Amino acid sequence: MPLPTLPAAIVDNILRAAFVEDAPYGDITSATLLSARATATAWLVAREPGIFSGGDVFTAAMKLQDPAAEVEQLVADGQPFEKGQKIMRVTGLARGVLTAERIALNLTQRMSAIATQTAEYANLIKGSKARVTDTRKTTPGLRALERYAVRCGGGHNHRFSLSDAVLAKDNHLAVLTGGDTAKLTAALAGVRAQLPHTTHFEVEVDSMEQIEPVLAAGVDTIMLDNFSNKELVAGVAMVNGRALVEASGNVNLSTIAGIARTGVDIISVGALTHSVRALDLGLDIAIEA
Amino acid sequence: MPLPTLPAAIVDNILRAAFVEDAPYGDITSATLLSARATATAWLVAREPGIFSGGDVFTAAMKLQDPAAEVEQLVADGQPFEKGQKIMRVTGLARGVLTAERIALNLTQRMSAIATQTAEYANLIKGSKARVTDTRKTTPGLRALERYAVRCGGGHNHRFSLSDAVLAKDNHLAVLTGGDTAKLTAALAGVRAQLPHTTHFEVEVDSMEQIEPVLAAGVDTIMLDNFSNKELVAGVAMVNGRALVEASGNVNLSTIAGIARTGVDIISVGALTHSVRALDLGLDIAIEA
Amino acid sequence: MPLPTLPAAIVDNILRAAFVEDAPYGDITSATLLSARATATAWLVAREPGIFSGGDVFTAAMKLQDPAAEVEQLVADGQPFEKGQKIMRVTGLARGVLTAERIALNLTQRMSAIATQTAEYANLIKGSKARVTDTRKTTPGLRALERYAVRCGGGHNHRFSLSDAVLAKDNHLAVLTGGDTAKLTAALAGVRAQLPHTTHFEVEVDSMEQIEPVLAAGVDTIMLDNFSNKELVAGVAMVNGRALVEASGNVNLSTIAGIARTGVDIISVGALTHSVRALDLGLDIAIEA
Amino acid sequence: MPLPTLPAAIVDNILRAAFVEDAPYGDITSATLLSARATATAWLVAREPGIFSGGDVFTAAMKLQDPAAEVEQLVADGQPFEKGQKIMRVTGLARGVLTAERIALNLTQRMSAIATQTAEYANLIKGSKARVTDTRKTTPGLRALERYAVRCGGGHNHRFSLSDAVLAKDNHLAVLTGGDTAKLTAALAGVRAQLPHTTHFEVEVDSMEQIEPVLAAGVDTIMLDNFSNKELVAGVAMVNGRALVEASGNVNLSTIAGIARTGVDIISVGALTHSVRALDLGLDIAIEA
Amino acid sequence: MPLPTLPAAIVDNILRAAFVEDAPYGDITSATLLSARATATAWLVAREPGIFSGGDVFTAAMKLQDPAAEVEQLVADGQPFEKGQKIMRVTGLARGVLTAERIALNLTQRMSAIATQTAEYANLIKGSKARVTDTRKTTPGLRALERYAVRCGGGHNHRFSLSDAVLAKDNHLAVLTGGDTAKLTAALAGVRAQLPHTTHFEVEVDSMEQIEPVLAAGVDTIMLDNFSNKELVAGVAMVNGRALVEASGNVNLSTIAGIARTGVDIISVGALTHSVRALDLGLDIAIEA
Amino acid sequence: MPLPTLPAAIVDNILRAAFVEDAPYGDITSATLLSARATATAWLVAREPGIFSGGDVFTAAMKLQDPAAEVEQLVADGQPFEKGQKIMRVTGLARGVLTAERIALNLTQRMSAIATQTAEYANLIKGSKARVTDTRKTTPGLRALERYAVRCGGGHNHRFSLSDAVLAKDNHLAVLTGGDTAKLTAALAGVRAQLPHTTHFEVEVDSMEQIEPVLAAGVDTIMLDNFSNKELVAGVAMVNGRALVEASGNVNLSTIAGIARTGVDIISVGALTHSVRALDLGLDIAIEA
Repeated sequence: MPLPTLPAAIVDNILRAAFVEDAPYGDITSATLLSARATATAWLVAREPGIFSGGDVFTAAMKLQDPAAEVEQLVADGQPFEKGQKIMRVTGLARGVLTAERIALNLTQRMSAIATQTAEYANLIKGSKARVTDTRKTTPGLRALERYAVRCGGGHNHRFSLSDAVLAKDNHLAVLTGGDTAKLTAALAGVRAQLPHTTHFEVEVDSMEQIEPVLAAGVDTIMLDNFSNKELVAGVAMVNGRALVEASGNVNLSTIAGIARTGVDIISVGALTHSVRALDLGLDIAIEA
Repeated sequence: MPLPTLPAAIVDNILRAAFVEDAPYGDITSATLLSARATATAWLVAREPGIFSGGDVFTAAMKLQDPAAEVEQLVADGQPFEKGQKIMRVTGLARGVLTAERIALNLTQRMSAIATQTAEYANLIKGSKARVTDTRKTTPGLRALERYAVRCGGGHNHRFSLSDAVLAKDNHLAVLTGGDTAKLTAALAGVRAQLPHTTHFEVEVDSMEQIEPVLAAGVDTIMLDNFSNKELVAGVAMVNGRALVEASGNVNLSTIAGIARTGVDIISVGALTHSVRALDLGLDIAIEA
Repeated sequence: MPLPTLPAAIVDNILRAAFVEDAPYGDITSATLLSARATATAWLVAREPGIFSGGDVFTAAMKLQDPAAEVEQLVADGQPFEKGQKIMRVTGLARGVLTAERIALNLTQRMSAIATQTAEYANLIKGSKARVTDTRKTTPGLRALERYAVRCGGGHNHRFSLSDAVLAKDNHLAVLTGGDTAKLTAALAGVRAQLPHTTHFEVEVDSMEQIEPVLAAGVDTIMLDNFSNKELVAGVAMVNGRALVEASGNVNLSTIAGIARTGVDIISVGALTHSVRALDLGLDIAIEA
Repeated sequence: MPLPTLPAAIVDNILRAAFVEDAPYGDITSATLLSARATATAWLVAREPGIFSGGDVFTAAMKLQDPAAEVEQLVADGQPFEKGQKIMRVTGLARGVLTAERIALNLTQRMSAIATQTAEYANLIKGSKARVTDTRKTTPGLRALERYAVRCGGGHNHRFSLSDAVLAKDNHLAVLTGGDTAKLTAALAGVRAQLPHTTHFEVEVDSMEQIEPVLAAGVDTIMLDNFSNKELVAGVAMVNGRALVEASGNVNLSTIAGIARTGVDIISVGALTHSVRALDLGLDIAIEA
Repeated sequence: MPLPTLPAAIVDNILRAAFVEDAPYGDITSATLLSARATATAWLVAREPGIFSGGDVFTAAMKLQDPAAEVEQLVADGQPFEKGQKIMRVTGLARGVLTAERIALNLTQRMSAIATQTAEYANLIKGSKARVTDTRKTTPGLRALERYAVRCGGGHNHRFSLSDAVLAKDNHLAVLTGGDTAKLTAALAGVRAQLPHTTHFEVEVDSMEQIEPVLAAGVDTIMLDNFSNKELVAGVAMVNGRALVEASGNVNLSTIAGIARTGVDIISVGALTHSVRALDLGLDIAIEA
Repeated sequence: MPLPTLPAAIVDNILRAAFVEDAPYGDITSATLLSARATATAWLVAREPGIFSGGDVFTAAMKLQDPAAEVEQLVADGQPFEKGQKIMRVTGLARGVLTAERIALNLTQRMSAIATQTAEYANLIKGSKARVTDTRKTTPGLRALERYAVRCGGGHNHRFSLSDAVLAKDNHLAVLTGGDTAKLTAALAGVRAQLPHTTHFEVEVDSMEQIEPVLAAGVDTIMLDNFSNKELVAGVAMVNGRALVEASGNVNLSTIAGIARTGVDIISVGALTHSVRALDLGLDIAIEA
């Protein structure tokens, strides 16, 4: 049950900026080589298997260039496809299709790559209680799309931004306590008291010793950063349900299953979005003059 | 001799949009955990070796959050660094540094990754006449930064956008000639005549047979798409200096040296920007309350 | 311990839009009646007592019209002032001061009115465990300022927007269950499972019967809407610490103390921001030609 | 005969900014609790009597969230309604209606409150020659809506902004004459000569002695600021039709009728827009899954 | 006594848009041919005599490219210059000066041309009571600059926009009266009654017969469109001071003196801004590597 | 075969900004004099002969004010018209037509003037190999429209902006070589090597002596600035096909034919866009109440 739709206004803003960047004063190739009336039918086709994400983005890109274009989605967002499978179909002005092609591909290749990679992670922890989440290591300007793609791949989202949840890290804690861990509980409780009651309060700890003082302040999630699996097991036991437990650091396809077995609730993975090999999707076009 | 600076206005626009995305109504963690007057000194530190790109971006991100912050660049753009080396130093308000941290990292990690990867490609073709170039397969919204990073890594840029050069592909040619290759020269010459004299005219061909008709129209660059190295050698010989020759398709670190030896002038590589593993750069922060 | 500062970028955006609205092509009165070099000193003066909010807004408004203007804050945000007390002082170009006057007043009058009114509510519940919060009934475009003003008056904030917390109301529940309350727990638990772990989950109930099914789904806050004080007492007892309890509806200066005594955690008051009588602040100006 | 329509572009801008503020990355409640296809019919219903203003705003808010929504206006702008009366009806996607609900209410509650309050003032001076007008004491960003609401209540508008009419106040005059009232006529006449002939020239005076020198300069309107009713009568007699006369200061529901009887042409009332108690309008929603 | 300054925000907006248009991703020539540290001194020099307008625009253009550039204005706005005279001096980064050159020239050439041409018109009617004004026939996007230039040349401004004064033309009147001139007075008086008292009310008439009915409605200015000089004399006599009289249509350098002698108050000239031959100003640059 | 269409997004941006400028808070005349339901039919009619340009601009202006307006183009862009000929027809709301009238006229008058003037130049060089091109001396903000109009008149475009081609002028060369012409070839070759292969490289020379060193660097176009026709003939002979030859400076309707006969390839004319007398087009309107 993924978040069903991307806000259309966000997609629209991203695409408009992309077209200004990619065609600040028009597509000179299409304008000179194609007649204004030529129409085309094109298919987004998979050159390798994966999980699709980005149908609305593809559609909106095509319609921005030709509002009368007709677009059909053949593979739903979040669904797998085989190599060679047709994913989207568009019929519209040839100029519009060709001008929109690269932006539509750049975005759906990236989104589908994220969905596909996320699914690999998610599949490895099926059956555990843990969920895999993204981080704020997203491409500046594309966070909404990339978080959506993570959902399409079966992952979950972490906080959207610096504005909607607290995540206190080592540097914050050092300032708050002047290095005196004895002050930690009181300092964090003071923060808690001034937050909106709707604001999630998460604190990162680097060592087992910090867990009790942090929990005593009443946090919602405790992040165990760069803990070994053994330490994670001990940490989960110590927390004992008083907060959610998030594991962070050194998570990859080889390690995630083991981490999940430690009993943590959340495993956050920066690589879901910061290191992405574009999935190979192509646009096969048939133009009628 | 790379293009020396990124236009400040472009960097500013990208960063402002990034901060709206990442902190639409402020950084609630810094605002509640750090005093308004605490200062910090932080270093951008390499967790792995690479080529740096993005000093101006890092500086501008820090100054947007604290205009009085002092930033020093310790490794110039385009220069290599070792694991553990300090690349940038910033001293400013602790809140500013921590709010800017993630965006500064997201962008410099990506830019340095592109520079580093580009340098690998460029090094493999040193001594040949060929240059390695980027493509339009860049992240929507970040093209200027990514093209700049390619330059930092010793690569060259291809056209910036759909507006500043013609690149006619198979679909365009099919429409132009209705599939009748005999018409190709006349059709392309007609296009050439209406272009501004400053507009570069590049045409992609899929087969040896198209080379002569395309050259006869007076193009500036001919792109040999998915040619084998043997075909590239033959193609270069056929062109014989009447146009620049670009090789495209199936270029990777294993193949580029061989392609360069075919005598082509340009080798374009989508992977320079479409598939990037973020380089591991971190921010080491010392805060004074 | 209020949230210490308003994000400067938000203040800047609001002010720039305000000046475009109020002086789309300049201040024709100042331009024709005042010399370009005349300077002025002006004081923001209280015509009635209250709690101040908006020092940064006043300062930014003046500096947008005259970047070299010097502004001093004499009463800190969140502090009380007497009738006749000087709150802010500005020295700068006379044209700048007079052009900025109305916008500076419109905003600080409104913010200080909110702070002052909030303080009345907050004072009435001192000693109880309850906090008074704002709602989303803010002036479109000014939410960040109004929420900040609530903090200045000793109130707390509710969720910022539709994006950063779930608040399910009667209409949502009706759809979710098709009116069949037996399905409530399962339906809500399904929602919970797909939310980011950082997303606060609040549900509004209209009757005592809904409390147990809602709590069983594991929500963070339960809103008791339009409950009598007697019902609130019973509701708090029933919840018994399994979630925060928010009282909503019919809260005013006569009722809030009684509501606080019921033991609820949160009392949300739309009137804090939706019905505001501008506090009477004036600008006393001395101009030197 | 009110100004018939609000410029659609202004309404659109205000609403788009409002939705960015209220749902920067979507409405998480609607997205998770409501199906993408559920439809709803909702009525804007009066919880207390008043004068309506804002039909176009309500409609545009709903259509921004669901372009296919059907909206019907049951009470025209400027018309009275009873408690319980249905004012607007919308049928559209449930998600769209619920996402738009708060912004639609925040704006129409405010606009209708202004219209209703203005009507109280206007009714008290019916039969006199005076008109009641707004001032520049409007909510930054919403001036066009608030001025329109004043018209819906039977009031009139003053100048829109600092750019479209001159209103010289005491501070301006002091600078212009260096305190030497003997210079007033010549100084004002000098200003007049350089204004566009379409620019209205209004001057505020604090005392009877300033009236003749100001009139001698040929102004269009003279504002008698904080005059007693007796002084107003004398002032109107002295002006004797040579300019419009505006009364300003200490105008409220108790005093306006008396002020109108003094024979002034214009009575400006800041409270029409700066102190507004939101009118109680609600949205009654019926959702079909 | 011209309006002393252009609003800086308007100049800034125009220039930023101009640089996006003229250098969307930087000035490739300066970036590759000039070192980042080379400085230059340049003078704006007149290649023909004229009246200057645009000092602030020139300065702002240079400072947008190099905030540390020093700019000195040698000929004030509104002052005449000889061929060969130096008007502005700038010292700054060579790249900045050369990137800003064309935009600075395009705007000051146009503004100075308008000022110079306006002065020719204004000089021809010196000694009469008439003023020459611009119209709304300005370049879309540059109205504020062009109106300012008219003032620099000794002309006056007409209404700024459709929003700040009424100008009813033949088409409007036809609709208002259904062609029945007998209804004209009542219809116009009805309009007048609903306008803000600060809104100037001007009506265009095509024939002598319309003058009395229009005046009877109490308009501020009556425009006599395409009247012969003889008719203008008669019209002025008929109006007899009850409104301002504006002559419009067929005004050029040969006819304006005669029109002024008819006794009209205002002569509006579209050609001041719609037909402009750029004044020949050049930038003489000395660069130091 | 002109570039067939203007990018709709560019036209839309220009028009939206124009309407904000011309009607920041509505068209007060139409709003008060015309009923909201009155419709009108209007024709864009030529008051003098010329070449038309701007059909899409006219249409978009009308549709921005009334999306349901029907617009028909009777004379295609690039086609001649006679005095009195109807060029465009629009049927829509009277308010919309009258509000859009001035902006539609301001733009089409300017565009058609450019097309008409360009055609005069182009006709004078028919039969030669030379083409006439525009320059960057366009109106800031309107470059795309003005370049399009040049194409409508049979002219060609030069580079769009500073970003899409190199044009090195005397100042650049002086810096590059420190005045030592012997270094010219090497310096320019160094620039060439770092440019994208798609970037056109043009160099301006002032004397015959510079031609060989510049050509030796491998430039694409050499601009002979302010050469006499005799010198141009010699220059063309010296270049002898190794680059395109552009003539620049002192080009007008009297000289262009002679310049074209010298054998140059390109003649650039700043006056095409920097000095434009608006073509006399009017809007004849029939309104139905």
